[in-house]
Amino acid sequence: MHILICLFLALQAASHLRKLFSDAPVESVVRVTGIVIPRPPGQANPRMQTGDIEVKAETAEVLNYCKKLPFEIKDFTKKTEALRMQYRYLDLRSIQMQYNLRLRSQVVMRMREYLCNCYDFVDVETPTLFKKTPGGAKEFVVPSREAGKFYSLPQSPQQFKQLLMVGGLDRYFQVARCYRDEGSKPDRQPEFTQIDIEMSFVDQDGILALIEGMLQYSWPKEKGLIKIPFPSITYDEALSTYGTDKPDTRFGMKIVDVSHILRNVDVGFLQNSLREPHGTVKAICIPQGAKLQFKDLESLNELSKSQFNQFISCLVLKPDGTMKSPLGKFLNEEQKSELIRTVEANMEDVVLLAAGQHKKVCSALGKLRLKSAELLEAKGLLFRDPSAFHFLWVVEFPLFLPKEENPVELEAAHHPFTAPHPLDEHLLYSDPSQVRGQHYDLVLNGNEIGGGSIRIHNAKQQRFILETVLKEDTELLFHLLEALESGAPPHGGIALGLDRLICLLVGGSSIRDVIAFPKSFKGRDLMSNAPDYVDPQELEPYHVQVTWPLTEAKARTN
Amino acid sequence: MHILICLFLALQAASHLRKLFSDAPVESVVRVTGIVIPRPPGQANPRMQTGDIEVKAETAEVLNYCKKLPFEIKDFTKKTEALRMQYRYLDLRSIQMQYNLRLRSQVVMRMREYLCNCYDFVDVETPTLFKKTPGGAKEFVVPSREAGKFYSLPQSPQQFKQLLMVGGLDRYFQVARCYRDEGSKPDRQPEFTQIDIEMSFVDQDGILALIEGMLQYSWPKEKGLIKIPFPSITYDEALSTYGTDKPDTRFGMKIVDVSHILRNVDVGFLQNSLREPHGTVKAICIPQGAKLQFKDLESLNELSKSQFNQFISCLVLKPDGTMKSPLGKFLNEEQKSELIRTVEANMEDVVLLAAGQHKKVCSALGKLRLKSAELLEAKGLLFRDPSAFHFLWVVEFPLFLPKEENPVELEAAHHPFTAPHPLDEHLLYSDPSQVRGQHYDLVLNGNEIGGGSIRIHNAKQQRFILETVLKEDTELLFHLLEALESGAPPHGGIALGLDRLICLLVGGSSIRDVIAFPKSFKGRDLMSNAPDYVDPQELEPYHVQVTWPLTEAKARTN
Repeated sequence: MHILICLFLALQAASHLRKLFSDAPVESVVRVTGIVIPRPPGQANPRMQTGDIEVKAETAEVLNYCKKLPFEIKDFTKKTEALRMQYRYLDLRSIQMQYNLRLRSQVVMRMREYLCNCYDFVDVETPTLFKKTPGGAKEFVVPSREAGKFYSLPQSPQQFKQLLMVGGLDRYFQVARCYRDEGSKPDRQPEFTQIDIEMSFVDQDGILALIEGMLQYSWPKEKGLIKIPFPSITYDEALSTYGTDKPDTRFGMKIVDVSHILRNVDVGFLQNSLREPHGTVKAICIPQGAKLQFKDLESLNELSKSQFNQFISCLVLKPDGTMKSPLGKFLNEEQKSELIRTVEANMEDVVLLAAGQHKKVCSALGKLRLKSAELLEAKGLLFRDPSAFHFLWVVEFPLFLPKEENPVELEAAHHPFTAPHPLDEHLLYSDPSQVRGQHYDLVLNGNEIGGGSIRIHNAKQQRFILETVLKEDTELLFHLLEALESGAPPHGGIALGLDRLICLLVGGSSIRDVIAFPKSFKGRDLMSNAPDYVDPQELEPYHVQVTWPLTEAKARTN
Repeated sequence: MHILICLFLALQAASHLRKLFSDAPVESVVRVTGIVIPRPPGQANPRMQTGDIEVKAETAEVLNYCKKLPFEIKDFTKKTEALRMQYRYLDLRSIQMQYNLRLRSQVVMRMREYLCNCYDFVDVETPTLFKKTPGGAKEFVVPSREAGKFYSLPQSPQQFKQLLMVGGLDRYFQVARCYRDEGSKPDRQPEFTQIDIEMSFVDQDGILALIEGMLQYSWPKEKGLIKIPFPSITYDEALSTYGTDKPDTRFGMKIVDVSHILRNVDVGFLQNSLREPHGTVKAICIPQGAKLQFKDLESLNELSKSQFNQFISCLVLKPDGTMKSPLGKFLNEEQKSELIRTVEANMEDVVLLAAGQHKKVCSALGKLRLKSAELLEAKGLLFRDPSAFHFLWVVEFPLFLPKEENPVELEAAHHPFTAPHPLDEHLLYSDPSQVRGQHYDLVLNGNEIGGGSIRIHNAKQQRFILETVLKEDTELLFHLLEALESGAPPHGGIALGLDRLICLLVGGSSIRDVIAFPKSFKGRDLMSNAPDYVDPQELEPYHVQVTWPLTEAKARTN
């Protein structure tokens, strides 16, 4: 009953029925009563759920007429996304959107069964009218009836879930609505959904195993089994092998260190780089890269220069086995063959070489790895199977990172509640920048789909990190610090980005394809035209008024 | 593992263990390893889940010390609600709060199983950053980055769920967060949760049966079985029998019409009332009311006068069978005994009599019925079992009501999307005030816990009601009207108030007892101190500024 069923009508019925059906516009709603009969021999359609039968109509009635639609409800009809959004209620009738939303519902239901029924988790709803968190620059504000006071729509239930642990709700989960105001960003939504989980008396391995089990349990059968446990990689390894903390492991082209081979090659930029602190020379090998066009290779070079200010040297292995490269003449045969052996290059491959500071070189090559994959894919030289699901845990992140605007100061790599790695705790007081955190990210096909950590449960340690390391104002977190002093159990958790996960699962081109009523990339609802102007009177109880930008103010007074 | 377990420790262990335990403050978190052994004979506690065993401790470690708490975590410790809210994370450790939140989670999970797994409903998340609805005076606004434009936090997903029906998601549900800014109201929350349901191709009976089945399926075993189908009463009948549209049917004291008995009694106020249009004389009988104190009966009188401007006449049936009443001398013996028979009064009962316009008389007596029940209960003369669950459907509401501020104009009794009763459709165009709607309310023990309706699916009818009957500006609802023209199926739905339902289920004294982190009745989070002042700079991207009330503005400049 809940799936769109096509009715095939044997219209030997009275002519008024025939007229009714031929007069009713497409997409009208009709009620038909009649007798279900088998289709005539040879007319069955095995690809349809109802393909064996037809209905011999006896009476029929149009329940609602459909006027002319702005587009045909056919999956092959090309329509702009703006038009789809404006008439979302029509777009939702497409087979793809029906599939996406129904699958999403089923997957979430299975996750709930796993958490609630199999593992006694408690589904607790936490408030969304909360208070600004320190550093919560991307939080929407909601004016209250108390002059000057605002609620804030939180980016996650982070504080609440930790407070629930203190409150003895030792296994919490919530399919939580979260809010983030990032202005205009493609493929981000001002509101989004997290599978939010927290547990007491758990360690990192406990959380990882829980999530692996949950994903395996809730994975739709039609998408194949997923193997657990998922592989795991440290942050350092991910950076040096893939140049990113969210590697797409569906293909190779790993970054390889070739410093030892080129250490004695008398080329200025190599020597200079290797003399730097953390100086290195690294390479990736693009299989069959020689089949790419010159302008493609050129675009890689430009990308590296514009995004990373990183010079790239290009080596092409010609079909005759010779190497074509500006570097060629500086390498002896032994060095050449060792280089080829090390990067595992074959004929017609291209090797990209970068020299410089470790992190920068890796990041640049990581980006080029992805870009090359795209170029190869466009030429049919590589295939990253979108229906192959490569999960990967990334662990042992640094706990703190130097602030971009002032690298002498540190900021939390994820959030200030992440517990330090037990082996690095002593470094907190001597060299905090070297401390690894008990943070873990879950990556799927090169997309971060979740992250979490073991939290600090010791109030003293939490206060030290906030006040001394991060130099945050702890007043805003007074309640949390007090809670940690009130018999807080050790605890940790994770949050999965549901929209992204489902999007990857259904192979959608954007998270908008798995959200019933998404906002445009400017944060607008094109159907209802939200956000919209509000009568100044309606703002009065909230003690706010609009400060019109000069140009608009002028336009409005004219 | 998820229930707080008391550990009984056989402390024959080393003295350092004994010291550790005696030094650790109450509510500290400890890790104990040891051997589980049976308790010594006679020391088992059958009322504890773990009452048969104890642990012979071998090692122990304090994982987190607890500082001195603001109150003891004992259910018998008296504490103000403000203190409980300020330290909610401690309050959550109470047996009652643990029970309430865990039960809530289980009931919701069972509802989901029923909807999703048994009946193929699709869980669809709808946006909470939306646009102001017409007449949505109680909606919080959220400033956007476009100057002067605001989102609105919707009071329910009403429009979205109807649009989903148009979109072919023919069985929708959502455990939906809703928002309503009612300023300071006791036992209301600015954010609350609805079990929100909508179906296509359904009639009123279909929705009622679905909800009955869902409640029976999800009802906790320990709370007893609930019988379905629930009884049903029309709005008119509810008003004339109970004086309210949410009758508490756990006790009698129904309103009885006695007009025919008193029609010929020569008392001015009776005669005047009966001559009015809709004039009537009605009564309720308070069983054993004579045992109430005089001041109690007086308070009923005052309540009626102050709230309804309704005069009440009081008749006391004395133990000797005589009637004590100012009216007594105007009634003959036949009239007296017929009155007593009609209201089914016994010795020591009190009869309250009111004359006047039907609706006013019924409302006043309905209120007195509830107030009398309270008074009787306080004296131990009546017992409304809080663990008896009396469900009741109220149906056939009027579709429109006269506006309070201008009774010549009509407003929607519930919302403007409710379909008229099929038998009354013709009255829409001639006498809309007489049209009944296909609306239904679900009442539990005198509390409205849900309501819904069959919706209008015909765009023309919807437009007529909005424009001609209600005189609303349809521009704000343009997208909905357009959707109805695009092949909308007949549909209807319902929303249950989850907080209230769970509160009644656990016998809580306020919905705050079933919400993990509730707001105070002034809308404040006493733990984190939300809402709070915000740096004017943080408001800049949203183009709003605070308009300080004069007194505060002065205080701030001084």
